[in-house]
Amino acid sequence: MASKIKKIGVITSGGDAPGMNAAIRAVVRTCAYLKVECVGIYRGYEGMIDGDFKAMDARSVNNIINKGGTILKSARCAEFRTKEGRQKAYDNLKAAGIDAFVVIGGDGSFNGALIFNKEFDIPIIGIPGTIDNDIFGTSSTVGFDTALNTVVEVIDKIRDTASSHNRLFFVEVMGRDVGHIALNAGVGAGAEEILIPEENLGLERLLESLKRSKASGKSSSIVVVAEGDKTGRNVFELKEYVEEHLPIYDVRVSVLGHLQRGGPPSCFDRVLASRMGVRAVEALLEGKTNLMVGIQDNNIILTPISKAIKGHTKIDKELIRVSEIMTT
Amino acid sequence: MASKIKKIGVITSGGDAPGMNAAIRAVVRTCAYLKVECVGIYRGYEGMIDGDFKAMDARSVNNIINKGGTILKSARCAEFRTKEGRQKAYDNLKAAGIDAFVVIGGDGSFNGALIFNKEFDIPIIGIPGTIDNDIFGTSSTVGFDTALNTVVEVIDKIRDTASSHNRLFFVEVMGRDVGHIALNAGVGAGAEEILIPEENLGLERLLESLKRSKASGKSSSIVVVAEGDKTGRNVFELKEYVEEHLPIYDVRVSVLGHLQRGGPPSCFDRVLASRMGVRAVEALLEGKTNLMVGIQDNNIILTPISKAIKGHTKIDKELIRVSEIMTT
Amino acid sequence: MASKIKKIGVITSGGDAPGMNAAIRAVVRTCAYLKVECVGIYRGYEGMIDGDFKAMDARSVNNIINKGGTILKSARCAEFRTKEGRQKAYDNLKAAGIDAFVVIGGDGSFNGALIFNKEFDIPIIGIPGTIDNDIFGTSSTVGFDTALNTVVEVIDKIRDTASSHNRLFFVEVMGRDVGHIALNAGVGAGAEEILIPEENLGLERLLESLKRSKASGKSSSIVVVAEGDKTGRNVFELKEYVEEHLPIYDVRVSVLGHLQRGGPPSCFDRVLASRMGVRAVEALLEGKTNLMVGIQDNNIILTPISKAIKGHTKIDKELIRVSEIMTT
Amino acid sequence: MASKIKKIGVITSGGDAPGMNAAIRAVVRTCAYLKVECVGIYRGYEGMIDGDFKAMDARSVNNIINKGGTILKSARCAEFRTKEGRQKAYDNLKAAGIDAFVVIGGDGSFNGALIFNKEFDIPIIGIPGTIDNDIFGTSSTVGFDTALNTVVEVIDKIRDTASSHNRLFFVEVMGRDVGHIALNAGVGAGAEEILIPEENLGLERLLESLKRSKASGKSSSIVVVAEGDKTGRNVFELKEYVEEHLPIYDVRVSVLGHLQRGGPPSCFDRVLASRMGVRAVEALLEGKTNLMVGIQDNNIILTPISKAIKGHTKIDKELIRVSEIMTT
Repeated sequence: MASKIKKIGVITSGGDAPGMNAAIRAVVRTCAYLKVECVGIYRGYEGMIDGDFKAMDARSVNNIINKGGTILKSARCAEFRTKEGRQKAYDNLKAAGIDAFVVIGGDGSFNGALIFNKEFDIPIIGIPGTIDNDIFGTSSTVGFDTALNTVVEVIDKIRDTASSHNRLFFVEVMGRDVGHIALNAGVGAGAEEILIPEENLGLERLLESLKRSKASGKSSSIVVVAEGDKTGRNVFELKEYVEEHLPIYDVRVSVLGHLQRGGPPSCFDRVLASRMGVRAVEALLEGKTNLMVGIQDNNIILTPISKAIKGHTKIDKELIRVSEIMTT
Repeated sequence: MASKIKKIGVITSGGDAPGMNAAIRAVVRTCAYLKVECVGIYRGYEGMIDGDFKAMDARSVNNIINKGGTILKSARCAEFRTKEGRQKAYDNLKAAGIDAFVVIGGDGSFNGALIFNKEFDIPIIGIPGTIDNDIFGTSSTVGFDTALNTVVEVIDKIRDTASSHNRLFFVEVMGRDVGHIALNAGVGAGAEEILIPEENLGLERLLESLKRSKASGKSSSIVVVAEGDKTGRNVFELKEYVEEHLPIYDVRVSVLGHLQRGGPPSCFDRVLASRMGVRAVEALLEGKTNLMVGIQDNNIILTPISKAIKGHTKIDKELIRVSEIMTT
Repeated sequence: MASKIKKIGVITSGGDAPGMNAAIRAVVRTCAYLKVECVGIYRGYEGMIDGDFKAMDARSVNNIINKGGTILKSARCAEFRTKEGRQKAYDNLKAAGIDAFVVIGGDGSFNGALIFNKEFDIPIIGIPGTIDNDIFGTSSTVGFDTALNTVVEVIDKIRDTASSHNRLFFVEVMGRDVGHIALNAGVGAGAEEILIPEENLGLERLLESLKRSKASGKSSSIVVVAEGDKTGRNVFELKEYVEEHLPIYDVRVSVLGHLQRGGPPSCFDRVLASRMGVRAVEALLEGKTNLMVGIQDNNIILTPISKAIKGHTKIDKELIRVSEIMTT
Repeated sequence: MASKIKKIGVITSGGDAPGMNAAIRAVVRTCAYLKVECVGIYRGYEGMIDGDFKAMDARSVNNIINKGGTILKSARCAEFRTKEGRQKAYDNLKAAGIDAFVVIGGDGSFNGALIFNKEFDIPIIGIPGTIDNDIFGTSSTVGFDTALNTVVEVIDKIRDTASSHNRLFFVEVMGRDVGHIALNAGVGAGAEEILIPEENLGLERLLESLKRSKASGKSSSIVVVAEGDKTGRNVFELKEYVEEHLPIYDVRVSVLGHLQRGGPPSCFDRVLASRMGVRAVEALLEGKTNLMVGIQDNNIILTPISKAIKGHTKIDKELIRVSEIMTT
């Protein structure tokens, strides 16, 4: 490939996700394989503005494929939302001879990259790295599968104590304004009810469902609640509501929080990140820009970032139906 | 649905795989939901021949979604390969009023079911349960994803000691005559080389690759070897070969063996098994037979079992390429 | 042994802990081995009052050694605190021919057993089952070691995201009014500061410590807080306090909650529970009562329950010192 | 403390064990805390002979407490067994100004250190780091507890498949010539029989035991075999023997191998290693030498290395008895 691109930057931005390191490794090693220079940009756009760069070769990324977090660190950066901030960032890239970059992150990070490209015409390719799976153009984002396993393992533990005490637990999981984590992990954990932003069951139906569950002879119940759920009540308020209206249950609450972001990535996320990293570098060398790498039907594809950040992968209606049948 | 089918059997057969219990649970609960009776058939076809049956309701499958193995037990059964054996099995099903059954297993189990259907005209639907992912008509079999995570976690541990001692490890993984586990887990574990039946690199190339790896400054190396690899040497012989021809390495061997079959299923396998179990029961009630439930592009589809057992999901050529780039 | 005791009950009471099932199994199998009948009492003292009993033989406890929770269930029971409740319980035991029982639980459960023994003269032996390690007469309670591993694994995950974002996390762990979990898991997780009820550092010192940590070049910080900590502020208030007085940090909070009670027990807890279960049954057959089985210097010993519930295992002053040195 | 010792080396030697990094971290941070310089010696005695040293400060050991293996690497070194090799090593230490060192390893490494001390009068303190727990003077070596958890988790997985197929598994575990891993992990995993070097049951008794187990209604059996077992047969030969003499079983074999050495250390091992690292540095500064740090009854104590390497912690006879009762 006789590309004009001689030096590629790689940056992680926004919330971290397991598998980001595997994606960094793939970008760095693909550059090495294709004899292009590679530079790590630290602390997201903040580091771009500060010129916090480090040259990376194939050995810089040894033994990171199985590490959670991101060795490049990440940050949310207000200054990059200003023209001045982006100018500084561009000047630094220019000075360092960086011709293009791969940005690993979510929709906020992609949006920043699009604006930057429009202003300074520097090629960019995105890799979707977020546990929330809230990006259009890929059936799975890097980190989503790992987060599902983490949530399911934790709920397995909570069920041990729930069923020893015949208790009802409301478990809040991440996902911002979408319910992918809640729905999938809820089905995987055998939850009795799953509350997601996409479907507002209403509180009455929740009570009905819990009554039915108790009547059916179940000794314990887990209700998985997406953080973006639209019932208008958080898990603590749900606890109070149920205790008031359905006093047959001893209710507890668990907010899983940030533990969902960490841990060694699953095999799926490592492989996905590796494939995406390869394709991202190749796309830049082919002269492409403003695209996101995604996976669809087990093929790596490219989608305009402008589309990717507008939509979401739809919630799986069939899986909602499966979840209902499973709570029989 | 006004189906003639009033009582459905469920059976696990052949090698066990994580997620089989989730599939059993889904079959049982879907029957309960659709008001069809459900009967568990124990110990595979052996139990069918012995009439080892037990009625199952929604509560029979409480708290099994996260358990490895199969509560119905499994077995390989020589007698079912005889006409007499199958006649006994049929008589038992008849006596118990079982109109149809769902068989969870691999190609051998499916083949038995096909023959049985041809002889006795009893409807059957298959759910692919095997860690090997060697069935056509589904991008993933139940158990495959869990086995990948298990292998990758174990190799992470082996790498700890490998890199502390600058050693080379040959790690043999399962997969019968296909390389899906080896290729995916090899990429996920960051293996320096992956030997699979589908690609015979030859031993010379292996030596070249190991030399290059050492020269590049890597301190340790993991070579993942599929049990069905065609180099003509098992891992112990590979060790001897490399020690003789490339004495720069301190070589060790690890045969992972049956630990790859056990453990709590991953979230993906639990969800997959749940979806497949629902579809399997519905297909029977729709009057279908001799089909296997599969997943393709995140949709649950049906494939004739006769096709499913003839072919394999193809090894992913692009992933082989990714694996080569990653070992830079 | 020619003991008058022919039938032994086994009961789990109070909060559940990993390893309780291993203790149940040990009690049941030791009874079988010594040819004494064994009866499981369900749902703690509530089940004793309701006569919720089931005969158990060696096979009743197959495949439970690795399961969290308690197959006998547990409950806190107000009625057992009344004379009438205890009379009912005693009548049930009498009617079932139960001569003595082993109670697996914490200080509340032991106290109940002592009162019961005083009133009805039925021999009882206690096995300390609680994650909190707050019982005198044993260096470790069943469940403590598992909870430490669970906490440390979760904080490892939180650190992935903390260090990717240069954040400070306050992590609240269980332990009621003692700091054993916080101190041990804090040292094990490499926490920068550990707040326990036994040592009130004061908030000023916390700020100093965090300032020093930042100055020393650490990129992230974990502060482990025992739920019984005496600073007078919970983790949410600590977050606010630090944000106000030390705005150099981006602060997050995580309350681990009930996930700490579940999961497969560690090898240590399984072995400990097995040894304790054997000794508990033997002690009853030797005519002993009102004693608790404990471990000290790797020997299984007996302590009067009256002593066990009065005191606590002291917090390890040397370990506090180690924790300070480690945060250098 | 006004010690003559101004610079302390730290070295890991022999087989690696989980928790070695936690011990390194503790040595380094204690030096920093006490304002003594600290130097990492790489690749065991080989690196000492090669002068492979690196200055370490408190930040050099960030985020390693939870990593398996050893960041200092390890090796077995023939040259250090020669006078010439040791002279080179001493010259390097001298040139680097290293006054004393802490050696983390097993009996071979300790023996080397003793000889070295005798010849060159340089103070040395040992920290027992080995999964085998085969050192006198400490109830637990660093890495033992983690290895037990690893083995038990793996056997849990093997039991999933064993009990699905009613199989008998011989599982070989590490431990060199002692049976601590086999006995403890065997009890923890609920093994039906445990073969250790300290007790030769004889093959007849094994058959009796397996017959009894089958007759008692158990569906599967796990026999844990220490690698140093004295029955005169390895697990493959045991399989053949049982298949010939007790054809009621379908027998499989699993050699766990090096996966037992890796993985994140347990909380216990992290805390133990931290406490030992602190005491090791303090002992050197107090002018002590030729001692090993150990734990006894939860206190950190010092034992002459000459004693530590002569004996073993005795196998726990009471635990053997417990294991027999548990297989009822």
